[in-house]
Amino acid sequence: MTSQLWFAIFDFLGIAVFAASGTLLAHRKQLDGFGVLVLASLTAIGGGTLRDILLDVPVFWIQDNSVFYTIAAAAFFTVIVLRIYGDLPKRVLLTADALGLAFFVIVGTQKALDVGVSYLIAVIMGTFTGVAGGMLRDVLVQDTPMILKQELYATVCILGSAAYIVLQILGLSQLLSMAASMSFIFCLRLAAIYWHWGLPVFGDRDPYRVKK
Amino acid sequence: MTSQLWFAIFDFLGIAVFAASGTLLAHRKQLDGFGVLVLASLTAIGGGTLRDILLDVPVFWIQDNSVFYTIAAAAFFTVIVLRIYGDLPKRVLLTADALGLAFFVIVGTQKALDVGVSYLIAVIMGTFTGVAGGMLRDVLVQDTPMILKQELYATVCILGSAAYIVLQILGLSQLLSMAASMSFIFCLRLAAIYWHWGLPVFGDRDPYRVKK
Amino acid sequence: MTSQLWFAIFDFLGIAVFAASGTLLAHRKQLDGFGVLVLASLTAIGGGTLRDILLDVPVFWIQDNSVFYTIAAAAFFTVIVLRIYGDLPKRVLLTADALGLAFFVIVGTQKALDVGVSYLIAVIMGTFTGVAGGMLRDVLVQDTPMILKQELYATVCILGSAAYIVLQILGLSQLLSMAASMSFIFCLRLAAIYWHWGLPVFGDRDPYRVKK
Repeated sequence: MTSQLWFAIFDFLGIAVFAASGTLLAHRKQLDGFGVLVLASLTAIGGGTLRDILLDVPVFWIQDNSVFYTIAAAAFFTVIVLRIYGDLPKRVLLTADALGLAFFVIVGTQKALDVGVSYLIAVIMGTFTGVAGGMLRDVLVQDTPMILKQELYATVCILGSAAYIVLQILGLSQLLSMAASMSFIFCLRLAAIYWHWGLPVFGDRDPYRVKK
Repeated sequence: MTSQLWFAIFDFLGIAVFAASGTLLAHRKQLDGFGVLVLASLTAIGGGTLRDILLDVPVFWIQDNSVFYTIAAAAFFTVIVLRIYGDLPKRVLLTADALGLAFFVIVGTQKALDVGVSYLIAVIMGTFTGVAGGMLRDVLVQDTPMILKQELYATVCILGSAAYIVLQILGLSQLLSMAASMSFIFCLRLAAIYWHWGLPVFGDRDPYRVKK
Repeated sequence: MTSQLWFAIFDFLGIAVFAASGTLLAHRKQLDGFGVLVLASLTAIGGGTLRDILLDVPVFWIQDNSVFYTIAAAAFFTVIVLRIYGDLPKRVLLTADALGLAFFVIVGTQKALDVGVSYLIAVIMGTFTGVAGGMLRDVLVQDTPMILKQELYATVCILGSAAYIVLQILGLSQLLSMAASMSFIFCLRLAAIYWHWGLPVFGDRDPYRVKK
C-alpha cells in the first residue's frame, strides 16, 4: 500500500474522530440537530480548510462528497452512542481528540511539504491543521480555546511535526516516519492528559466541561 | 430580463437587508459610528466572501465599489429609521433577516454550481453563504450564533437550496426555480418564527435580544 | 534606499510591535508558553494574512521564515521586559499599538493598490490590514474587539489610508506620502488616547484591561 493511500486513510480517520469530538461538545452545549452538524463539520474540516486556503491549493472537500458522508456518519454514530450510554467518560473524548490530532498534524505537515514550503513553515502548517478546527469550535460556542489554556496541546503538535521531518531527513521511509510521529503525538498527548503535565495555568483546564 | 441580471439584483437586495440587520444588532449592542459600519459590512459580505474564497474565485466586492455604497446606504437608512421610530418591533428585523437569507442561499447555490461542484457541495455552499455572515456577526459581539440555537434556521436553508436544484432538474426554468425556492425559504422561515417551530432548545431563542 | 525597501522595513516593524501587543495581552490573560506565541502570531500576521487571501496573492509569510523569527524575537523580548519590570504602564502598550497600526494600514493600502483595486477598496483593505489582527486576538480571548468600542480606532485608519492616497495624487513622492500618513495615524491615535477623543460608548473602553 502506498504512503499516498495511507495519508488519505489517516485524513479520513482524523475527520471522523474530530467530527465525533464536535458532536460530543455540541451535546454538552445542548445544541440540536443542525447545530450538531455545523459544529461537527467545523471541527472536522476547519483546520484543513484554512491550511488549504493559506497554501493556496484547492480546498480538499470542494470536489469530494465523501468528506461530508464521513462527518454525517461519525456524528450520527456518536449521537446513537450518546443515546445508549448517556454521557461518555471524559477520557474517551480526550483520547479521541488526541487520535485526531495525531492524524491531522502529520497529514498537514506533509501537505505543506508537498507545496514546497520550508521546514519551519511546514511545522507551523501541520500544527495549525491540527489545532485550528478545535479553535473555531471553541470560539463558536464561546469557550476559551483549549490551545490557549493547555500548554502541551500545541507543544505536542510542534514536536510531532518536527519529529516527522527529522525522521525523514535521517533516512526513514515516509510511511515509518508517519507511523512513528503519529504514535509519538498520540502517546505524548495521552501521557500529558493522564499525568496532568504542563505548566500551571489559571482557569478551566478541562476542554469538555460545560461552562456553568 | 436575463436570470443573470436577476441574480445581481437579488445579491444586492440581500446585501442591503443583511447590512440593515447588522446595523440593528449594532444599535442594540450600543456600538457607535464605525462599529456599526464594521458590523453591517461583516454581516452583509461575510458569507459571500468566505464562499468565494472556498470556491477559489475572486472575492465579489474586490473590484466593485457599489457593494460598499449599498452597505453604507442601507446602514444610513436604518440609522435614520431608528432615530425616527426608536427601536423597531422584533418581527420587522426577523422578516428582513428571512428575506436576506432567501436571497443569499439561492445566489450562493447558483455561484457554487457555476464553478462546477456536486449538488451536495452546492447545497452546503448555498447554506453557508446564507448563514456565515450572521455567524461572524454574532461571534464578534459575543452572542451564541443563532444557527446553533435556532434549528429551523439552517434546515430551511438546506431545504430551499435543495429545492432550487431539484426544480431545475425537473425542467423548471432557472428564473422560476429561483423565485419558487426563494419564496419557499422566506415563507418557511417566517412560519417557523411566527409559530415557534423547531425542537426545544436550552437558553435564549431570540437572536436580537441584548444579553443582560 | 527605495520605497520598496522601506515598505519591507515598516512591515517588519509592524509585525514586531503587534507581536509584542499580543504577548502583553496574553500576559494579562495569564496564558502560558505557546498560548503566548499563538496570540502574538495571530495579532502580528492575522491582518496581513486575511488581506492577502482577499486580494488573492500568496500569503506573505508562506515562503518567508523571517516573519516567524521576528515574532519569536519580539515575544521573547516582551516576556523578558515583563519579567524585569513586572506589568508595563498602559500608555506603553497603547503607544506600541498605535505604531503598529500606522505601519500596517499604509503597507496594506499600498499592497492593495499594487494589485490594482479602486481607491475605495484600497482604503478598506488598508484599514482591514491594520485592525483585523487585533480583532482576531480579541475574539480568541473573548474580549469585545476594540474596533467595536473605540470609535477613533477605525476612523484614524480610514483617514490615514485616504491621506496616503490623496498625497500621492497631489504629486508627493511615495516615500514622503508614506512618512506623512504614518505619522498622521500615529499622532492622531495617540491624541485620541491621551485626550479621550471619540463619542461616548457604553462598557469598557480599555482594550488591555483584563475582564473581571
